[in-house]
Amino acid sequence: MTTLPDGGLALSPLEEQLLPPGVKGLPLTAPLRQHMIGLQGWNVLHADTSFPVALLKTAVLRHNLDWMRAFCQRHGAVLAPHGKTTMSPQLFGAQLANGAWGITLASATQVQVAARFGVRRVLLANELVAPADIRAMLHLLRDDPAFELIALADSLEGVVRLAEAVTAAGLRRPLPLLVELGLAGKRAGCRTPDEAMAVARAIASAPGLQLAGIEGYEGLLVSADRDADIDRVDAFLRQMVELVRQCDGEALFTGPRIVLSAGGSAYFDLVARGFAGLPALSRPVLPVLRSGCYLTNDHGHYLELTRELDAREGRGDGLQPALEVWSMVLSRPEPTLAILGMGKRDASHDIGLPRALVRHRPGPGRPVALDEGWGIEKMNDQHAYLRLPETAAGELAVGDLVGCGISHPCTTFDKWPLLLLVDEAYRVTGAVNTFF
Amino acid sequence: MTTLPDGGLALSPLEEQLLPPGVKGLPLTAPLRQHMIGLQGWNVLHADTSFPVALLKTAVLRHNLDWMRAFCQRHGAVLAPHGKTTMSPQLFGAQLANGAWGITLASATQVQVAARFGVRRVLLANELVAPADIRAMLHLLRDDPAFELIALADSLEGVVRLAEAVTAAGLRRPLPLLVELGLAGKRAGCRTPDEAMAVARAIASAPGLQLAGIEGYEGLLVSADRDADIDRVDAFLRQMVELVRQCDGEALFTGPRIVLSAGGSAYFDLVARGFAGLPALSRPVLPVLRSGCYLTNDHGHYLELTRELDAREGRGDGLQPALEVWSMVLSRPEPTLAILGMGKRDASHDIGLPRALVRHRPGPGRPVALDEGWGIEKMNDQHAYLRLPETAAGELAVGDLVGCGISHPCTTFDKWPLLLLVDEAYRVTGAVNTFF
Repeated sequence: MTTLPDGGLALSPLEEQLLPPGVKGLPLTAPLRQHMIGLQGWNVLHADTSFPVALLKTAVLRHNLDWMRAFCQRHGAVLAPHGKTTMSPQLFGAQLANGAWGITLASATQVQVAARFGVRRVLLANELVAPADIRAMLHLLRDDPAFELIALADSLEGVVRLAEAVTAAGLRRPLPLLVELGLAGKRAGCRTPDEAMAVARAIASAPGLQLAGIEGYEGLLVSADRDADIDRVDAFLRQMVELVRQCDGEALFTGPRIVLSAGGSAYFDLVARGFAGLPALSRPVLPVLRSGCYLTNDHGHYLELTRELDAREGRGDGLQPALEVWSMVLSRPEPTLAILGMGKRDASHDIGLPRALVRHRPGPGRPVALDEGWGIEKMNDQHAYLRLPETAAGELAVGDLVGCGISHPCTTFDKWPLLLLVDEAYRVTGAVNTFF
Repeated sequence: MTTLPDGGLALSPLEEQLLPPGVKGLPLTAPLRQHMIGLQGWNVLHADTSFPVALLKTAVLRHNLDWMRAFCQRHGAVLAPHGKTTMSPQLFGAQLANGAWGITLASATQVQVAARFGVRRVLLANELVAPADIRAMLHLLRDDPAFELIALADSLEGVVRLAEAVTAAGLRRPLPLLVELGLAGKRAGCRTPDEAMAVARAIASAPGLQLAGIEGYEGLLVSADRDADIDRVDAFLRQMVELVRQCDGEALFTGPRIVLSAGGSAYFDLVARGFAGLPALSRPVLPVLRSGCYLTNDHGHYLELTRELDAREGRGDGLQPALEVWSMVLSRPEPTLAILGMGKRDASHDIGLPRALVRHRPGPGRPVALDEGWGIEKMNDQHAYLRLPETAAGELAVGDLVGCGISHPCTTFDKWPLLLLVDEAYRVTGAVNTFF
């Protein structure tokens, strides 16, 4: 895979755009059309790019896409990957081409970005409250009869607000909503089944709205105690399933199917199992998973979590990290300290600092793997502090490259308007854009 | 000031651009030319925008610009504000119109962004090492004889690299460099005066290079112990001044002036005082301060630091916070918990979490100030958890607005491609773009 499949999205305006000098990672001295990037013969290992640079390994993306398709087939679930992770139309296209049911998003402006590039089914996994945001969503629905949007509600106030807006807008089809079930002390969502049922009944009886299913986010339960997490996730999923049964028993669902959605990037196997084997209800139940981080995975938090997931699945072919940030040694001011030109503006720092994977002196040859003695110990806005073992002081010079893995893809993607696609030899084959 | 002075920069392409629906903060259902933003009659207090939204209070920007111009005049220093803070051409323009000597930047791609919009003098306060980045900088210098760039060096390898590149490029004028003096255990920069002198001599004798001065960054000394900081900063500045004397004594400077540059956003008063009153050298010494955060200040780390600075100056008219992020209450799942639609993608979280300043029910009336009992206790990628006092449980509903201050402007600016300018009544008067 040297280019990504487009999934029918309208990506040519991105490929045709003229990129000016100044885009992070690109070594431009004159504007360049984006589709020409893969034809320049750039190789990161030869230091042909600007640094820092964010890289996506296309072979690993392909592996992760295939893995997730097989996972969903095995479990009888569909995937609406959380697009907020990457906010990249090209990656949305690859996910849709790979069979994704839709794209999940977190805000109205994110939905507008997806719709602009041709995404036709969106799960807005968030409460839709601001008047301008509601107007924007209703505009999309009115503008394009083929555009589908499902949003969340967790309060009677929220339901009233949406019902009034839909009526005022004269939307000809009902707005489908999922009731969000929450967790005590955690984020949004009804705290008890009774509260959730009250919201569900309000939706079902409101003009212009349709109760389309139940939603929850078990990812908020990730803690240091995995065994306890698993019990809590299972209990939460049982509560969601019970809520679906109760709503169905009261004939509150009126759409063609019942959407039952959960599944972050840590415990989506538990979700798939918890949603499987529901007894027959009045209409088909569609389990919708929403993992966003499966596509690139990472070298930290999510690699650890998905390795455990892979073990629970009893397999050995799990998700692999596809995203790296490479930077150059700008200074070697002390024997065990190197200063890299990569900072908080370039790599995630919210869950863990980047992990130094390899060093490489630009030119032929393969990068050298770094052992545990090498580590990023701090980042400023534009710099990282790489500590190296005393015995390795002679191995790293000004102008050498250091390839880093990151922890938490969401907060690295949002630092790069453009990421480069590379093959196994770190040859640049193309680029993807992001819209944050 | 309803619009910002452009400082002679080429900003009309930004004002003329057609913004598509999907830009964070903008309530668009159809594309809008940027210069039309201020004519829409939007008021944040009426919830006319999308949320979250990032706001710059123009009256406060004006105050901070005036304050800084007066400060520099008082101390006989010039300002090359660090542009990496905002990366906003419109704000660069306002700073240049306010008398800034140039713009400081941290990377080659940042310099390209500034040059693209017409910035004519850049201090690249970083080592310039990557071949593509060196080529890009030499291209700018060759392309436009009026473009000035000064960069840093802290190693003999770095000097050789730059000298070779300048010679190979056939640049007709020398590349001016400052020797970076560093601090033990801190970031880049020579660790001893001897090392710094060796680099200075190498620059002075290298073909194509010119020793233009000495640079350091005292901002790395900010700690919890202010008194100790001040002593350390003073000692560091004395070392820099001594280095300038020594270089001048060896006749290593050959340019029209000697640049002596330091000054982050915490201790620039110490820098201005430390650089004042140098005895006469072979040519004029130009003290160049580089504060980036003075322009917007913040409601956290920098507000505290600049209040202390203002006290040291013996004044009472100090820098004020101009940057706020407003979001809407999406959920009120528990009496003392509100979930806001603002997350790690929208507001700084690296030095401190945002500070909840005011609440407001959209419509007429003024926002209500929040006391210490209200606080953001956590953020996810797209959400904040606002804890409120039990006694205030009835005061905040779904759909209410919460205005937050942030700590560390650099890591809020980089989360917004566009920030809205507002007047004292939160009426939207325009917008500025950022290029990260």
